[in-house]
Amino acid sequence: MTITALKNHLKILDNYRARINSCLDNYLSQNSALSENMRYSVLAGGKRFRPILTYTTASLFNVDLSQADSCACAVELIHIYSLIHDDLPAMDDDDIRHNQPANHKQFGEGQAILAGDGLQALAFGILAKNDAIDPAIRINLLQHLSRAAFKMAEGQSIDLSIVSKNVEIELLYSMHRKKTGALLRCAVLLGATLYPELSGEDEMVLNSFSEDIGLAYQVQDDVLDVSTSDAVLGKKQNSDAEKCKPTFPSILGMDESTRVYQSLYERASESIAQLSVDATPLRELTGKLLSRTF
Amino acid sequence: MTITALKNHLKILDNYRARINSCLDNYLSQNSALSENMRYSVLAGGKRFRPILTYTTASLFNVDLSQADSCACAVELIHIYSLIHDDLPAMDDDDIRHNQPANHKQFGEGQAILAGDGLQALAFGILAKNDAIDPAIRINLLQHLSRAAFKMAEGQSIDLSIVSKNVEIELLYSMHRKKTGALLRCAVLLGATLYPELSGEDEMVLNSFSEDIGLAYQVQDDVLDVSTSDAVLGKKQNSDAEKCKPTFPSILGMDESTRVYQSLYERASESIAQLSVDATPLRELTGKLLSRTF
Repeated sequence: MTITALKNHLKILDNYRARINSCLDNYLSQNSALSENMRYSVLAGGKRFRPILTYTTASLFNVDLSQADSCACAVELIHIYSLIHDDLPAMDDDDIRHNQPANHKQFGEGQAILAGDGLQALAFGILAKNDAIDPAIRINLLQHLSRAAFKMAEGQSIDLSIVSKNVEIELLYSMHRKKTGALLRCAVLLGATLYPELSGEDEMVLNSFSEDIGLAYQVQDDVLDVSTSDAVLGKKQNSDAEKCKPTFPSILGMDESTRVYQSLYERASESIAQLSVDATPLRELTGKLLSRTF
Repeated sequence: MTITALKNHLKILDNYRARINSCLDNYLSQNSALSENMRYSVLAGGKRFRPILTYTTASLFNVDLSQADSCACAVELIHIYSLIHDDLPAMDDDDIRHNQPANHKQFGEGQAILAGDGLQALAFGILAKNDAIDPAIRINLLQHLSRAAFKMAEGQSIDLSIVSKNVEIELLYSMHRKKTGALLRCAVLLGATLYPELSGEDEMVLNSFSEDIGLAYQVQDDVLDVSTSDAVLGKKQNSDAEKCKPTFPSILGMDESTRVYQSLYERASESIAQLSVDATPLRELTGKLLSRTF
């Protein structure tokens, strides 16, 4: 990529990030204590990779971004609710998230559980209420979202059940596909589903692309958990090992794990050449994911 | 009601109950540990009043019950997920539910949180996927469901925040409307929304009917918590008082609280005379709610 192209790409990502932050702010009311609690976690920052994936995919098909806002928000809200619940003492027991006290440290465990519950309901509500999207398409979007949210809970359940256990690498693949992959895949598919004339071929290509990057993302997370400092991660480093969680590095080692996610990103990047539209923005984003340090 | 009419009514309720139990069983897969956990709570019984409300309302408008199945299940799954989360130590800390150990006593807190999370996602998914319902109507149903699920979390958040506090009765009304009323109201409205020619007048009547019974139901719950034994309740008696929760009986006393819910049921029962269809089944059900002992 030339310097100009890179600058241009970064500017687009900044725009997407500003856009999603503003939409999330609008969607979250300030009418109740629970809403204030939700705002604390939702507006704390974060990489916003999922909404960026949705916007980028939608842009490939010239979908108006105002149509993609509710999809991008819905996916991000599901992600944030999962972080709030994951951080609870009964789950991963993490005290810091996005460089601030985790939700339950700030509001107590009960309110944190409810904030997550409310965010999940809100995610479905935002999508269901977006009258700018044709009802039949909205139904498709809601199906994708519910499937991903369900799989995510299943993945987290497996994650919780294998602490301190020796597991086969295949179980780890399957767990990661559900826990992290399903929602990332959903982020891509929502952006594409907004295009009413999406062809079956393009859908298939995006399907395998998003499966690859979804899995790559979590393997990379495992690696970054070992190699990146607390300050950069915005949470505690090496927390997987401390919790005796089987991870890709603990089973395959750091080098092999790095090779695994790099080749998944690579395959994903190559696969989208088959799309009927110019896939450059999505390929650039994949490159950005590959080079992330947190 | 004559003996024959009463017997007939009870038979219809039994049929609805059998129908919902069978549908829930079908919708819940047995493919994962988390699904098994969900089945434990969902299939443990329960009164199934919410699905019965949905079926009864749908039947007033001659909606085929097979159309109402997904609505009835969705509402019940949201209800069950809320019970699982409410029972957690960080919330109401109840060990027994439906005469069996609460979900977190059986599976641990982390898995119980995830079972609730998964059930909420499943509820939206079941509705979104029901191709027998026109997409535009399905969108309406999903809007009702998300609004109710969100309010329910808000109501529970208020409930949690007022423990050991002196509160005005108005806050209690507002809390109950959200915590319990919203989902009961949703159960009625889903049944009615399935009827494509539902008039604005009928919708308004059902709206106030369901608001009344939703509030009545929770005030009655507060009263029954004091007056009914553990075995009949299927959970611990007098648990509100032990938890220092402000309730209708603690503020208004038992007699006045009983009068409140009785008159709400009465007003509800009278209001549906204005419906354009014969409201007898719904009136009989309201009578059944009024006379419930658990």
